Amino acid sequence: MIIVIKPNTPPEGIEKVVAEVARLGYEPRPIYGTEQTVVAAIGDETTHGDLERLTVLPQVQEVLRVQKRYKLVSRQFKPDDTIIDIDGVKIGGPHFAVMAGPCSVESEEQLLTTARAVKAAGATILRGGAYKPRTSPYEFQGLGKEGLRLLQLARKETGLKIVTEVLSERDVEHVAESSDILQIGARNAQNFQLLIEAARSGKPILLKRGLSQRLEEWFLSAEYVLSNGNPNVMLCERGIRTFETFTRNTLDLSAVAVAKMETHLPVVVDPSQGSGKASLVSALCRGAVAMDSDGLIIEVHPNPAEAMSDGQQQVDFTSFAQLMGTLPPFLNLTGKKLETFKA
Amino acid sequence: MIIVIKPNTPPEGIEKVVAEVARLGYEPRPIYGTEQTVVAAIGDETTHGDLERLTVLPQVQEVLRVQKRYKLVSRQFKPDDTIIDIDGVKIGGPHFAVMAGPCSVESEEQLLTTARAVKAAGATILRGGAYKPRTSPYEFQGLGKEGLRLLQLARKETGLKIVTEVLSERDVEHVAESSDILQIGARNAQNFQLLIEAARSGKPILLKRGLSQRLEEWFLSAEYVLSNGNPNVMLCERGIRTFETFTRNTLDLSAVAVAKMETHLPVVVDPSQGSGKASLVSALCRGAVAMDSDGLIIEVHPNPAEAMSDGQQQVDFTSFAQLMGTLPPFLNLTGKKLETFKA
Amino acid sequence: MIIVIKPNTPPEGIEKVVAEVARLGYEPRPIYGTEQTVVAAIGDETTHGDLERLTVLPQVQEVLRVQKRYKLVSRQFKPDDTIIDIDGVKIGGPHFAVMAGPCSVESEEQLLTTARAVKAAGATILRGGAYKPRTSPYEFQGLGKEGLRLLQLARKETGLKIVTEVLSERDVEHVAESSDILQIGARNAQNFQLLIEAARSGKPILLKRGLSQRLEEWFLSAEYVLSNGNPNVMLCERGIRTFETFTRNTLDLSAVAVAKMETHLPVVVDPSQGSGKASLVSALCRGAVAMDSDGLIIEVHPNPAEAMSDGQQQVDFTSFAQLMGTLPPFLNLTGKKLETFKA
Amino acid sequence: MIIVIKPNTPPEGIEKVVAEVARLGYEPRPIYGTEQTVVAAIGDETTHGDLERLTVLPQVQEVLRVQKRYKLVSRQFKPDDTIIDIDGVKIGGPHFAVMAGPCSVESEEQLLTTARAVKAAGATILRGGAYKPRTSPYEFQGLGKEGLRLLQLARKETGLKIVTEVLSERDVEHVAESSDILQIGARNAQNFQLLIEAARSGKPILLKRGLSQRLEEWFLSAEYVLSNGNPNVMLCERGIRTFETFTRNTLDLSAVAVAKMETHLPVVVDPSQGSGKASLVSALCRGAVAMDSDGLIIEVHPNPAEAMSDGQQQVDFTSFAQLMGTLPPFLNLTGKKLETFKA
Repeated sequence: MIIVIKPNTPPEGIEKVVAEVARLGYEPRPIYGTEQTVVAAIGDETTHGDLERLTVLPQVQEVLRVQKRYKLVSRQFKPDDTIIDIDGVKIGGPHFAVMAGPCSVESEEQLLTTARAVKAAGATILRGGAYKPRTSPYEFQGLGKEGLRLLQLARKETGLKIVTEVLSERDVEHVAESSDILQIGARNAQNFQLLIEAARSGKPILLKRGLSQRLEEWFLSAEYVLSNGNPNVMLCERGIRTFETFTRNTLDLSAVAVAKMETHLPVVVDPSQGSGKASLVSALCRGAVAMDSDGLIIEVHPNPAEAMSDGQQQVDFTSFAQLMGTLPPFLNLTGKKLETFKA
Repeated sequence: MIIVIKPNTPPEGIEKVVAEVARLGYEPRPIYGTEQTVVAAIGDETTHGDLERLTVLPQVQEVLRVQKRYKLVSRQFKPDDTIIDIDGVKIGGPHFAVMAGPCSVESEEQLLTTARAVKAAGATILRGGAYKPRTSPYEFQGLGKEGLRLLQLARKETGLKIVTEVLSERDVEHVAESSDILQIGARNAQNFQLLIEAARSGKPILLKRGLSQRLEEWFLSAEYVLSNGNPNVMLCERGIRTFETFTRNTLDLSAVAVAKMETHLPVVVDPSQGSGKASLVSALCRGAVAMDSDGLIIEVHPNPAEAMSDGQQQVDFTSFAQLMGTLPPFLNLTGKKLETFKA
Repeated sequence: MIIVIKPNTPPEGIEKVVAEVARLGYEPRPIYGTEQTVVAAIGDETTHGDLERLTVLPQVQEVLRVQKRYKLVSRQFKPDDTIIDIDGVKIGGPHFAVMAGPCSVESEEQLLTTARAVKAAGATILRGGAYKPRTSPYEFQGLGKEGLRLLQLARKETGLKIVTEVLSERDVEHVAESSDILQIGARNAQNFQLLIEAARSGKPILLKRGLSQRLEEWFLSAEYVLSNGNPNVMLCERGIRTFETFTRNTLDLSAVAVAKMETHLPVVVDPSQGSGKASLVSALCRGAVAMDSDGLIIEVHPNPAEAMSDGQQQVDFTSFAQLMGTLPPFLNLTGKKLETFKA
Repeated sequence: MIIVIKPNTPPEGIEKVVAEVARLGYEPRPIYGTEQTVVAAIGDETTHGDLERLTVLPQVQEVLRVQKRYKLVSRQFKPDDTIIDIDGVKIGGPHFAVMAGPCSVESEEQLLTTARAVKAAGATILRGGAYKPRTSPYEFQGLGKEGLRLLQLARKETGLKIVTEVLSERDVEHVAESSDILQIGARNAQNFQLLIEAARSGKPILLKRGLSQRLEEWFLSAEYVLSNGNPNVMLCERGIRTFETFTRNTLDLSAVAVAKMETHLPVVVDPSQGSGKASLVSALCRGAVAMDSDGLIIEVHPNPAEAMSDGQQQVDFTSFAQLMGTLPPFLNLTGKKLETFKA
């Protein structure tokens, strides 16, 4: 780290910082500039103490970090793309996978007709919320275990893999039993206990970016999963919260490029949450593909106007099939191929 | 709700919306304007379905909500200030309480010297993190149960009440046994399962505002607690995430005024997290008091430069005592009185 | 507009609002709901007074706008894509144009070598700042008139069209004489006097989105230009300011989709400003093309490490030529064609 | 500056950076750490070139700035508070001044009755917009020169000093003739040409913070004024744009504390724009005073429900008089005194 000393600090003030840096286990190296002095602290920032607290000293202007805080998720640690194999369906590297299905599991009929439709259009993974995090306690909270049962039914009938959100540490075990991928939602992106518990289930994790999570923090949430023994994390960009109100969130597609550059993990884009508007989903899918994402997660409903949650952002079967038809030539240009079921 | 129809929609399109509104249990009332038609949906928005999904219809421009979504926390539901009695220490109405202590519980000596110092300066509640939510898995995660033991020791010796954060549903029971107030941190502000579990413990809850939580959403998080049978919630403004980088967060003091106007709950301000800079804490405390907040939660450490977490925002004993000395005349002007222990 | 009355307002309070609405020229239409009353105000919001001020009445909870505030720029007003003809180079509809060149014009050699290189790679419009808006008064402020002279020289030699920023009303006339497109920068996106003056020059306008400008506000800035008699506006998404610090700005690619849906104007994307990182430019260009943008504006410098401004986001000639090579197949998929000079 | 080299860079890569730093006029000082190497660049960052462009080199991870970019406005340059004397009315140091008046000048009667009322309540400076920056071209744009004439009339009758916004370089001269303080609005906070022109008028400047302007950038906008020969700048915090929608802007009161710590300039708070809600103005004024601001600028209208702009945030005469009555005891606690006219 670099400790920036305030201008006009007398030598004793600088020496005190030097002594403090040494006491905290770093080798201090003061550099006397023409305008200001800085003290470089030599040592591994990830194993020594955090020097940011030195900013409480009146002579310290600022402490600048040098090393990146994430390690296991970084390209530097593992240069090759991670490819996750979800019981035969791959994602990452050249493998592009589409996850689709309703925001909430509402009924057997709703789920099964949707499962059949998204499979027919080319999806290999079925999404569907059984446990729903809702801003208000008065909103539909999901079908819970009954929802999980219906997801298993859909898997059995169609062969689609299942991704569903887990909200509680206590649910990890039975959600993991009923599904193939555990989704950690945006509101739980820094619920570290849930991340650890989900990691330990051994299931692949779809980790949504928090509403106002910086990229570094998102990668560190993934680092929680990897450092707890689970290498199978998919990062999912789902829009961040900004001042804009026309869209529900601001989908940050440059985050895809950064995540692919900085980490080796597959990156999935959620255009439904990312925009909150069904009319924007198709264009955002094209953008996500062109920017080398590894997958999409799209909300599809038999009749969005009747959906029990977030109808405004769900597309119907026809729109979904059309949009799926537009993707292969774009995928082709990026050297990726849509995962499909073997005939 | 009000459904705004796009300009130039033919009558059949409007009729379809009218029919849909009726089917969803509302009484539709179309109003044909000079430029655009709107359909008012008459009925209780909090018990009927959400009409926002109607925006998937191509003829619908927008759906505007009319009713406020929170109820039990609102002034309209309960006009009088809620006063919470924490085993003799009151907060709310005319009662102003100061919570102070280290960011993290680090050792018996650190905690007990701090407890004595903050009590001497006028605090009645001791804060201290036993379980710490940390952005990186490689940072100090708190002493856990040992931290709780030390907090109980400090309570026994000094009589201070204890507020400490709970991170996991599984910890609620034993954290509740060891403390007087359960803190829900900013990163868990929409961890609804944790909110429900904490509510059921019966302990008063200090509910921090999420990093990018809108005021309405914050009030709805509190609504989760009240609707699960626990009326004792303190709202805690602790800074929101904005584009500004000079301060760690942007303390939103107008949120205090809004929360006092819209809800009956006590409002506490956290200037330490709210600014991330010890040098700003004193001024922010004065602002918070002047704006009618009901309490403060301040990070205090025997030697901030040695703190195991967030040293840069912790004040030392001398600064804390000085700042406490400045508050009573301001409190006096707002008709509040600092809670103290009876002699 | 819709005026939402607070719950439990007595009839006189409602009548006062009704009277006020009538006095302001609207036809009031109260709707008595089960929970709350709203008053619909019938009349053209764009020609009558703004009713938002009614929120000062104690019985008014909120005022909801129904009509969109922009008119001339809207698809509803003009369904067909606007195609702008810049002295033979077209943009909009099927015509895709690339603008490229240095952040700042620095010297004759720098500008001319860049002009030749970007032309060779397929650009038809040369960008280059002569007047530079700089956050600090101590930073390089551009060559001014000498910069304009060099831009004309480059145009004469290469035939490239010129786009350059105008910062001051007083410069509009001579900047317009020396260039083909006037750029209004993000910091001046709501400098309405400059917008009006630039509009009156008759030159096509490249209107960058302000750092924290909502989409509606951006379209209204364009409306200033159109309502002052100039139909030739290109909207330019260049990243918005968010909490993220890894990238300089957050490029909002969904803004492209929204702008294409809501307006008939060509939309240009600036990946250089939008990310502030040369390493992200290529991926962002692909995303922008896939999302149906009509053009790109890219910063190119012979040696970015020596640039007098914003070197970190400028690409060199080799990178630019490579990136240009990747675009045609993507353009092909979106039904657009790169504008080129006739042989 | 500190140039952070990527891990595992071979010695030649480091040497190239060292050479580049030297070529740009700094003395390079490489520090070989255990994990990463950094190169300290010794020299005055404010007079040498910007090294951020070195991030285009593939071996450079990041460039960290050491020195603050503002100089003339800093406490370090001038430790004592600047006190501005506006023809007898002082602001800064112990002098607290209240500016009040309508958002827009609408008519002689409106302005004069307001001027009398705000003077009677204790204001010494009259605010009133003659030129109004409006988001939409269809909104009321102010009375222009007629508005200035009315402001002069009000000054003549009441003796109040005048503050009014200037939108255009071309208006600076005649607005300066008609007023005592030139206001630069939030939308023009980085319209550097206007800042320079206003600076040269010699009039005191009220510089509003931009909607998404970082504190450092705001101070640099003030630096433009001071470095153009005008030392009389008042910084005005008026709320920043965030994700929050309940308030129009988020008033950043901690910005007051930072501005007072980092600069010697008087700091004024605008609670009207800062909240967009008349009902919050009084509480925000108390907070601003308690946090050591040097003045307030408050929108006051004879009948806010009839205002031609921003009625929702203007207070009426009674509310204004009440609020003024609450301030003196708070001012007393901060060692400041409300400026008044000598009897």
